[in-house]
Parts: sequence; C-alpha cells; structure tokens
Amino acid sequence: MILPENNAFDFFLFCHRNPKPCPVLEVTEPGNSILKDLAEGADVRTDLPRYRIYEKGECVGDVEQIVDFWRDDLVAFMIGCSYSFESALLKANIRLRHIELGEIVSVYFTNQPCKPAGIFNGSMVTSMRPIRLDQLVRTNQICSRFPAVRGAPVHVGDPNKLGVVDMDKPDFGWKPEIGADEVPVFWGCGITPQVVAMKAEVDFMITHYPGHMFITDRLSEKFAVL
Amino acid sequence: MILPENNAFDFFLFCHRNPKPCPVLEVTEPGNSILKDLAEGADVRTDLPRYRIYEKGECVGDVEQIVDFWRDDLVAFMIGCSYSFESALLKANIRLRHIELGEIVSVYFTNQPCKPAGIFNGSMVTSMRPIRLDQLVRTNQICSRFPAVRGAPVHVGDPNKLGVVDMDKPDFGWKPEIGADEVPVFWGCGITPQVVAMKAEVDFMITHYPGHMFITDRLSEKFAVL
Repeated sequence: MILPENNAFDFFLFCHRNPKPCPVLEVTEPGNSILKDLAEGADVRTDLPRYRIYEKGECVGDVEQIVDFWRDDLVAFMIGCSYSFESALLKANIRLRHIELGEIVSVYFTNQPCKPAGIFNGSMVTSMRPIRLDQLVRTNQICSRFPAVRGAPVHVGDPNKLGVVDMDKPDFGWKPEIGADEVPVFWGCGITPQVVAMKAEVDFMITHYPGHMFITDRLSEKFAVL
Repeated sequence: MILPENNAFDFFLFCHRNPKPCPVLEVTEPGNSILKDLAEGADVRTDLPRYRIYEKGECVGDVEQIVDFWRDDLVAFMIGCSYSFESALLKANIRLRHIELGEIVSVYFTNQPCKPAGIFNGSMVTSMRPIRLDQLVRTNQICSRFPAVRGAPVHVGDPNKLGVVDMDKPDFGWKPEIGADEVPVFWGCGITPQVVAMKAEVDFMITHYPGHMFITDRLSEKFAVL
C-alpha cells in the first residue's frame, strides 16, 4: 500500500490496531522508494510485477511500474502475505484444497469491524481454507509462529459468526467444497487495508495488482517469532 | 512516550523498526489522551503516577499529572515494559537476582545501532539479568511468547560483543554479581526510545518518571503471541 504522507500516520495506526489483516513488515520514509529491511536496495516503484492506481478511492488504472506516478510525499507500507504462511503449512503437509485444485483462495467480506484509526475504518475481509480436523491444532501452531504474515486464524467454524451467510458465494476466489472431515478456518486478509483505504476515499494510492505481490529473498522462516 | 504530531510518524517508524527496545502496545490519535485498548477510558494525562517533561531533549521537570501540559497535537505511545516478562519468568521459577535483592535491574548502554527513522537514531540500551544456565532455554522460550513486552533476549553471553567493557559499572541499577552457574542475558530496554528522542532534541516530550509506569488490568498473558 502506497499512500501520501498526510494519510500515513493514520494508516500506520490502522495497521497497528488491526495486525491480523494488516501486518506491517516495513515502512518507507516519505518520498523514499528504496527498501532496506525486506530486500536492501529494492525499489518499490519497479520491483513489483504489476500495480493498481487509485484516485479518491476509485481504481483508475493498472501499470507495470510506477516511476511516473511517484511523488515526494509517498510512503510505502509493505504488508505480510498469506502466501508465506501457506508455504509453512504446505511444508508440514497440511492439506490446502484450493492449492491442490489450482484455485485462488476463497475470500469473504465479514461483519466484523476493524478498530478504526483517523479516516480509516471498515469491516475485516477474511480468507478461508477448509482444514482437516486432525490437522487443525498443528495449523494453529504453525501459523502462530508467523504473526508478521497474518499469524493465527481469526475464526474457526460457523461462518455465520462472521456474518458470512452463504459459503457457496465467496466474494473472490474458489467456491469451496468443505469435506465432512474438514472445518472452515478464516484468516485476516490483505484485501482489508485496500478496501478500507478505498472507502476512506484517500486522494491517491497505489497497491499491488491482485496476485502480483512483492517477492523478497528473505525466507519466511526469518519472520517467525520463535 | 508523548510527542507532538509532527514527530509522531517518524517515532512510530523508529519503534516499528526496533521492536525489541520499543514494542508499541497502543498509540493515540493526535490530541486524544484517552486509551481504548490497554485500558478503556484511561487518561494518559492523569493515570500514571509520575511524569517527566522534556524541552529540546532536556529534562525540565517532574510532575504528578500533565493536564496543564497537554496539547491538541500530542500523541501518546504506550510501550511494553520488562516488568511484564519478569512476571512471566518469576511464575516459572526463573531466578531473577536483582528482584531477590530488591535492586533495580542492571542497565547498560551498548554500541549496537538501532535502525534509524527520520530524526531518530542512536544505540540500543539494554537491561541485563544473570540467568542460570540450566534455566536459559526456558527463559528464551517464555520471553519469546511476549514480543509485545520486549520478547526474546537480544544477546546472551560476552558483554564485549555489545561494547559493554565493564559489567561492574552499569549505567543504571544493580552492580551485578554473576555466579559461576549463570550467564549474562541482555534484553532491549525501554530507556532506548527516551535516549533517542532526547538525542533528537524533539521540541517537547513527556515520558513516565523512571519506575512509575502505566499499569493496566489487562493481564500480561493477553499479550502472548501463543
């Protein structure tokens, strides 16, 4: 998420108050597009495969680099991605059905309010993965090691508790099949900060294009809290 | 730490980049002195036992409340305290010598640079506790559960590696006696952000008076990552 300096403190606050959907890995100083920590010397203007530009909360275009859009007042927030914890789950042979099927993860909007900050407020967006009951404890343990990439699930079981009335109608991604030996498990989703910033109608912002994230050489294991 | 809005983003960034000495628990919006998360309705102007006021990096006085010093542009950063992880260690019967002796923990300035952010930069300050070698692994495990209150140690063993040349001369607190069965263990210390903000000569800031922290009913256990 790239935002002007005048929204940056409030957005930082929003992320800090809602770390499961918005775990912040690195923040740049205003006008500085070069990363230090995630990948020293990486340039957020060119080192993602594709970007999306917004004006006053509306998408106005998709581009492959943002050199021409860069400004002296822009601040980049690098946010942890679910692909990192999925990789840790796969290493432990936790079955992830959408990956087996080559589908995009099932995403649901919920009625669970995020903690607001300044102009930023809205409901949490979640990603859902059916998890085998005999792998549920291990799934929770593995994800708990990685709060920087969303961490432990936000909810297990009954989707109605999140205000999700029809599991067959995800807002994005795979229409799930949940087996008799599986339970739906929900995680905070990185679409949350995008939706909240769109709703706040920030004058200008840039995000990654869906599925076109920033990739670093730093191993997920480096982000584990233990 | 209470700072003007115009320093708040940089300070937030400094804390985010240096989470072991500066784990941020809650941040208020500019001008709002009321907490929501740590203790709903608590007022940071009155609910600490004693405060210290600084102008341009110099201490200019100690007071018991800061109602008269409050301004519309002030932002409060509530930072996790080592007393919380010490409490978790004591519950596990980890021997903490300075507490047995009724002494203040040994504090050492180091030569380890913090990651800078804006005007804020400086070296990490550490607190040191001699830990019995047979309790070292458990100590690391317990503290790892609590990144919000400093988390795992930053260093174990040889103090020279941190630039500490004489353990008999702590910068504050107890002159330690380290037994043959003990090893010095260093944690990030909350004096770090104060020292860094003093060095940055911020126009105005307010901190707690040493040893006079904000106390919340929220149990330390609530801050554990697992």
